[in-house]
Amino acid sequence: MIQSRLIATELTPAPTGLDLVRNDLPTTPPPGHLRVKVLASAINPADINYLEGQYGDRPELPARLGMEGIATVIAHAPDTLPTPEAPVPAIGSQVIFIRRCGCWADILDVTPEDVLKVPTNLTPEQGALLKVNPMTALRMLSDFADLNPGDWVMQNAANSSVGECVIQIAKKLGLRTVNVVRREGLQQPLTSLGADAVIVDSKNTKDELMEITAGNAPKLGLNAVGGDSALRMMDCLANRGTMVTYGAMSRRAIKVPNGMLIFKQLRLEGFWVTKWIAAQKRARLETDYASLAQWMTDGSLRTTVSQTFPLSAYEQAFTNAKQDRRGGKVLFIPSAG
Amino acid sequence: MIQSRLIATELTPAPTGLDLVRNDLPTTPPPGHLRVKVLASAINPADINYLEGQYGDRPELPARLGMEGIATVIAHAPDTLPTPEAPVPAIGSQVIFIRRCGCWADILDVTPEDVLKVPTNLTPEQGALLKVNPMTALRMLSDFADLNPGDWVMQNAANSSVGECVIQIAKKLGLRTVNVVRREGLQQPLTSLGADAVIVDSKNTKDELMEITAGNAPKLGLNAVGGDSALRMMDCLANRGTMVTYGAMSRRAIKVPNGMLIFKQLRLEGFWVTKWIAAQKRARLETDYASLAQWMTDGSLRTTVSQTFPLSAYEQAFTNAKQDRRGGKVLFIPSAG
Repeated sequence: MIQSRLIATELTPAPTGLDLVRNDLPTTPPPGHLRVKVLASAINPADINYLEGQYGDRPELPARLGMEGIATVIAHAPDTLPTPEAPVPAIGSQVIFIRRCGCWADILDVTPEDVLKVPTNLTPEQGALLKVNPMTALRMLSDFADLNPGDWVMQNAANSSVGECVIQIAKKLGLRTVNVVRREGLQQPLTSLGADAVIVDSKNTKDELMEITAGNAPKLGLNAVGGDSALRMMDCLANRGTMVTYGAMSRRAIKVPNGMLIFKQLRLEGFWVTKWIAAQKRARLETDYASLAQWMTDGSLRTTVSQTFPLSAYEQAFTNAKQDRRGGKVLFIPSAG
Repeated sequence: MIQSRLIATELTPAPTGLDLVRNDLPTTPPPGHLRVKVLASAINPADINYLEGQYGDRPELPARLGMEGIATVIAHAPDTLPTPEAPVPAIGSQVIFIRRCGCWADILDVTPEDVLKVPTNLTPEQGALLKVNPMTALRMLSDFADLNPGDWVMQNAANSSVGECVIQIAKKLGLRTVNVVRREGLQQPLTSLGADAVIVDSKNTKDELMEITAGNAPKLGLNAVGGDSALRMMDCLANRGTMVTYGAMSRRAIKVPNGMLIFKQLRLEGFWVTKWIAAQKRARLETDYASLAQWMTDGSLRTTVSQTFPLSAYEQAFTNAKQDRRGGKVLFIPSAG
């Protein structure tokens, strides 16, 4: 059985330094492993940062690539047994990769611990985008501030994939969102997802926000930009509020006036879903991902795919993935072409 | 009865804008009040910042001054009754001011809620310095990180008054301290207080710290400097560590690389003892201040006074209080001179 997979041979901006390699796999998976066929896998900003050596960990070269995707189980090694922390999904079931497996590949041998079973009515496009962004949004809205229904949450980069999940999940939790974006024209698409307010980031951000919320400063801010945008967010938040940083699109550090910490008593935290997943028990992951998968299949949590590519078209896929304003994620459909 | 008190008539660097005024007080305190004679009151950096309009709240002019001090109760209004949240201290007992009363005065009329009884064996020099710095140190060491005996704590501005309290209280709690200072010559005095290590802040801070702690990065950092010193502290802390900011001696904002929040998962918080006190029940304050007072009287918690002045010498007091390297707090002894 031939496996095709993308690997990195140097840490440079993709697609330079990438290579599509073919390996001859043994007929059965190695002991303790499952063989899966990848249905779809995502190109995330995290993948691009990882390839440029700008991520939380640095790849050892040559590196297997791809952090997020969905697959069908096609074979078991004969001795693959379930454990409490890792049941063995049946052949034909769908799984997402909850550990980094390098899922920019068509066929993969993985361990039961690497994957989590998801409903078969989840489409490849939905499943490929289940792990990272929806969970990031759910956890940031749930774990950092004591919010009540009707409370306002502020976020920047509101038209990012996480931002769109935040809007929809906040709605489900009864929270209201002020959504800060960097350009005009996003009012309609974000409002249609459930945004309560959309404003373009500027020196008037605080005044606009206070007018929208009738002076109720948000207790929680979600920051994926950094730099001046983060500073404006800190200025908008309530005393004792929390700003959670999960991205840094401006690639600029956050400048924190000391009084924001001492007198305003803001708390600054960060969120990285990879670390969160690694720290959870499987039962917790199963429960939380089941909720998110249910919302995806009932249509109340939508993620947008802009375009799909076979692995062989990876150069074009990256050109597309790096475009601003593409309006959705780029996916690989590894078994195609 | 004549009261002398210092007031601010404009928000300018002290002592400009200060005035010593005399008021004729009625024979008995107003209803519900106690009359106290101030034994000693402190000049803190917070007072100086307040006078320059750089503090968490801005004074309304003309403003009564002085946030921290100790006094003896000399009279009660006839109808002053105890409540569960505010017992009435007997005449002759010693009290500290737990609300801002403007205690740069020789005689004051205050409410029972404004003060907290402390042991009479506390000297005026000890009592005047009980409220702010020892409690700031105790709370920062207790409330922000889950520390075990033997764990390392890092602090900058280690030769400040809070810094000296941190060294001594950490010792009592079984914690070890790495103490960062901005000049040579402080090794001996800080070690004599119980410092486990003293280093001069530089680009080698992290290497020196790691050598001292044998690679055990501190889970808690206490920052009163800001700017580059805070950045170096963040770099030194363990993953998932917490940096608590309680001062900003460099008067420079903290620059937070996004990865410190996202990947290193640091948490940045602030501490302001005034807000902490305001949020506590009296029983809690009584318990915590009793512990600190006990440590002061048994000699295990020492605070240093550099010089004392009568209120009439306030110009000289401020000149002295603003000097670096003065080696201790400047106090007013308001009933003198």
